[in-house]
Amino acid sequence: MKIVAAKKILKANDQLAEENRARLNAAGVFAVNVVGSPGCGKTTLLEALFGNLRGRLRPAVIEGDIAGSVDAGRIDALGVPVVQINTEGACHLDATMIAAAAESFDYAALDLLVIENVGNLVCTAGFDLGEHLRLVVLSVSEGDDKLIKYPAIFQRSHALVISKVDLLPYTNFQIDRAAAGMRRLAPGAAIFRVGALGGEGVAELADWLVEQARAVPRSPECPPWSRKP
Amino acid sequence: MKIVAAKKILKANDQLAEENRARLNAAGVFAVNVVGSPGCGKTTLLEALFGNLRGRLRPAVIEGDIAGSVDAGRIDALGVPVVQINTEGACHLDATMIAAAAESFDYAALDLLVIENVGNLVCTAGFDLGEHLRLVVLSVSEGDDKLIKYPAIFQRSHALVISKVDLLPYTNFQIDRAAAGMRRLAPGAAIFRVGALGGEGVAELADWLVEQARAVPRSPECPPWSRKP
Repeated sequence: MKIVAAKKILKANDQLAEENRARLNAAGVFAVNVVGSPGCGKTTLLEALFGNLRGRLRPAVIEGDIAGSVDAGRIDALGVPVVQINTEGACHLDATMIAAAAESFDYAALDLLVIENVGNLVCTAGFDLGEHLRLVVLSVSEGDDKLIKYPAIFQRSHALVISKVDLLPYTNFQIDRAAAGMRRLAPGAAIFRVGALGGEGVAELADWLVEQARAVPRSPECPPWSRKP
Repeated sequence: MKIVAAKKILKANDQLAEENRARLNAAGVFAVNVVGSPGCGKTTLLEALFGNLRGRLRPAVIEGDIAGSVDAGRIDALGVPVVQINTEGACHLDATMIAAAAESFDYAALDLLVIENVGNLVCTAGFDLGEHLRLVVLSVSEGDDKLIKYPAIFQRSHALVISKVDLLPYTNFQIDRAAAGMRRLAPGAAIFRVGALGGEGVAELADWLVEQARAVPRSPECPPWSRKP
């Protein structure tokens, strides 16, 4: 029988996440952990962002999926360095997986490391990967009640991207209600509305990321992760 | 430090799930576990189904959410008995929660118990709740690649409902590709396409559920759960 000590694992994860962050800081690489439901449009958002960021930030991506390499194939097609992690059943990425995957990259050739987490609005909330910024994506087709039902992930994010806004006319999603929910859960968080396929709002989000990335390396006394968003 | 024995918990869950199922069988109540991503349209599907099933099956619902009672409120408004479980962080329902929640119902007044699981395409796959049938909902706005990325939950379901088909013209979702993926993962599973808001496909799914419910109580030697779908 396998004995799993839950608290010990989380403590080990946090420690390794700090080590990941220290390595990123030392190299001046800004890391973003992108979380959200399956199919909320994380990969399509990255495709749009990388187009806008060309010549401004040199990105690389770690793709997390239970199985398959659909997303990594899409990022690879853009000429962006990418590593696919197959979690084989695990419902979130953890700091150990990131440490292993990041070894594939030449940090000297990068400014931005984007980690696309497993599609999961619950379990990804609890695991610090060593990122500087956590960005939660919520598509309008999911409904604006998700902030009430899954508060932790919004509470622990530094920015909310309301995605697929081109579908707004065909849904009952209310931007105001979602934004109010986010302000309640994470008062300091930035809120963006993006239609990645049509390009709406992509420039605003890209500009904001460039600005955020300038702050790396941050002071180790106040790691961004420990800040309330 | 808290020591958690993962296998022991799963074994205990399976045993309690069998007890739940035996109780349902004895009462002639058919139980369906509805799983899918956050915002895939599970509750809206139930609202549409209950309209169609009126006079045919007497339903009750267990709603699983991390927090809040949005969904339970919607079911209650239909006059359908409902219990809300707040998992307070847990990413799936388990058989213990179902056993506790089901105590609120008068089984003699029911034919159908619908369990709406926490929105999660990963963790809900591993937990038998004592249901007779597992139904996975995938909305067209999520993309047809979800079967490749999250195989386990589709593999372990007896039916796939492709939901929000009214959004098909505004997405790149291909029904054929999703159906082919489901046939590969779960060859015997039924596949439905439903637009719950407009009513498309609701009658077909309702009729099929009525037919499935007739088979309860099933033989304890061959619990439906152990059947490959």
